[in-house]
Amino acid sequence: MKTLEEQELTGRIAEDAGLVEKALAERWLSDVGTYAPLLGEAMRWAVLGGGKRVRAFLCLETARALAPEADALDYACALELLHASSLVHDDMPEMDNDEMRRGKPSCHKKFGPAIALMAGDALIALAFEAASKGPYAARAVSLLAEAGGWQGIASGQTLDLLSEGKRITLAQLKELQRLKTGRLIRASAELGALAASASADETRDFAAYAEAIGLAFQVTDDLLDAGEEGSDRARDLATFLCFMTPEEARAYASELTETGKDAIRKYPGAGLLLSFADRLLARTY
Amino acid sequence: MKTLEEQELTGRIAEDAGLVEKALAERWLSDVGTYAPLLGEAMRWAVLGGGKRVRAFLCLETARALAPEADALDYACALELLHASSLVHDDMPEMDNDEMRRGKPSCHKKFGPAIALMAGDALIALAFEAASKGPYAARAVSLLAEAGGWQGIASGQTLDLLSEGKRITLAQLKELQRLKTGRLIRASAELGALAASASADETRDFAAYAEAIGLAFQVTDDLLDAGEEGSDRARDLATFLCFMTPEEARAYASELTETGKDAIRKYPGAGLLLSFADRLLARTY
Repeated sequence: MKTLEEQELTGRIAEDAGLVEKALAERWLSDVGTYAPLLGEAMRWAVLGGGKRVRAFLCLETARALAPEADALDYACALELLHASSLVHDDMPEMDNDEMRRGKPSCHKKFGPAIALMAGDALIALAFEAASKGPYAARAVSLLAEAGGWQGIASGQTLDLLSEGKRITLAQLKELQRLKTGRLIRASAELGALAASASADETRDFAAYAEAIGLAFQVTDDLLDAGEEGSDRARDLATFLCFMTPEEARAYASELTETGKDAIRKYPGAGLLLSFADRLLARTY
Repeated sequence: MKTLEEQELTGRIAEDAGLVEKALAERWLSDVGTYAPLLGEAMRWAVLGGGKRVRAFLCLETARALAPEADALDYACALELLHASSLVHDDMPEMDNDEMRRGKPSCHKKFGPAIALMAGDALIALAFEAASKGPYAARAVSLLAEAGGWQGIASGQTLDLLSEGKRITLAQLKELQRLKTGRLIRASAELGALAASASADETRDFAAYAEAIGLAFQVTDDLLDAGEEGSDRARDLATFLCFMTPEEARAYASELTETGKDAIRKYPGAGLLLSFADRLLARTY
């Protein structure tokens, strides 16, 4: 039996995902095939009709928690576009060589690696275009660039690649995850706070929340993967289960989730984000 | 015997290239290896110590022509970073598979395709970070995104790829070149004008100049390539020499150069850009 709060969360997640899907399809991806139709098709394939839109949700709900009337939709789209670009390039043969993504063939399997390479590049550019339409373009673009560039995803994916088949330390694994996924999750809250014209303290609190639940999400992901027979990730040397038992990993994820919730508990509008942290954690049990 | 004007132009080209090289090395690329040293090395390899810095020159000199005190250096760096990223990805095995670039091994030959893929992505992000530091971040980022994304390079490179071995029309070739190289050349002048807080009319004039000399540059490039024995490009079906004799191509490049010069002739500060247009054209003879 679901509580009212849980029902509200479920509804809001679906509502936000719908908003973002519509804006992506109608505002940002409607014309992308104007000059090279195949490029446009590949871009839409990589972005639309899939994805949990976690980053968009964190951005929109952080903005709402801090200022009910804030409009963070362009930033939410920018985050999902950048995230999709990173998946397209990370799936490519020279990287993880993943053939499936979000339940369908990955972009390079469907369109070939050259078109996937260009589609990823074009999605990065489009992410920045979307970020530049928000109320504080300079700051928004900086945040997004730091999440996607050498300060974030690009270094994280490089470290992930170089760590294949090698033993790394727990500290190195945490750093890798912080760069590869944590920075963009954190930027999701930071961009939401920016859309709400938040103070530095408010921004810091929601960023701390996002960073903590982002890492908890990664730990629970490793737990879920370890449960799947024959999972690639379970044989990987760079998972949290190389350093702790499943019980310890569950305790670590719970602790991170509590730390994240503590950072925003004092905000009256943060109820939905508190429930969301619990829901992410609950995936494992 | 060089005229004084020609000597001044030579000096200014070298001076601008030096300024940009220093800013790229010391401001934008000094810390890029902080988390993943190899990624940083690949980014520096792709950007520093090579390149004519044509886009930076057009940006800096357009700004100076319109406002002597304008500071367009961040925009100039953004243009060179985006240009370098496009070369890294365009050289990759799934695209043109070029082994040499600017007189040394291309980024993927030196570092492998996975690192080159990530280095290119990180350079795109860094280009937008640099653009966001200028005086009109939102507009600058939009201009750069349109030049690099589906409205520009990504579509141009896709069309170039899809045209391989196929006959295309002259109109299609012009469109392909406009997207692949023209948009960024045009954006170079537009960003310079933006740094100078130029009016819409001024921006339009310098953009027209850049677009025309950019196309003239491409036509003379095809002429130079056709002169090289065994050049790949000479056998290419997508060069201007598929549609005109060398004499006609020279006349077309001259005509484009004059059109470009006419667009900015009335500006007292444009002397150096007028000489620059002539110098680009003179490469062929």
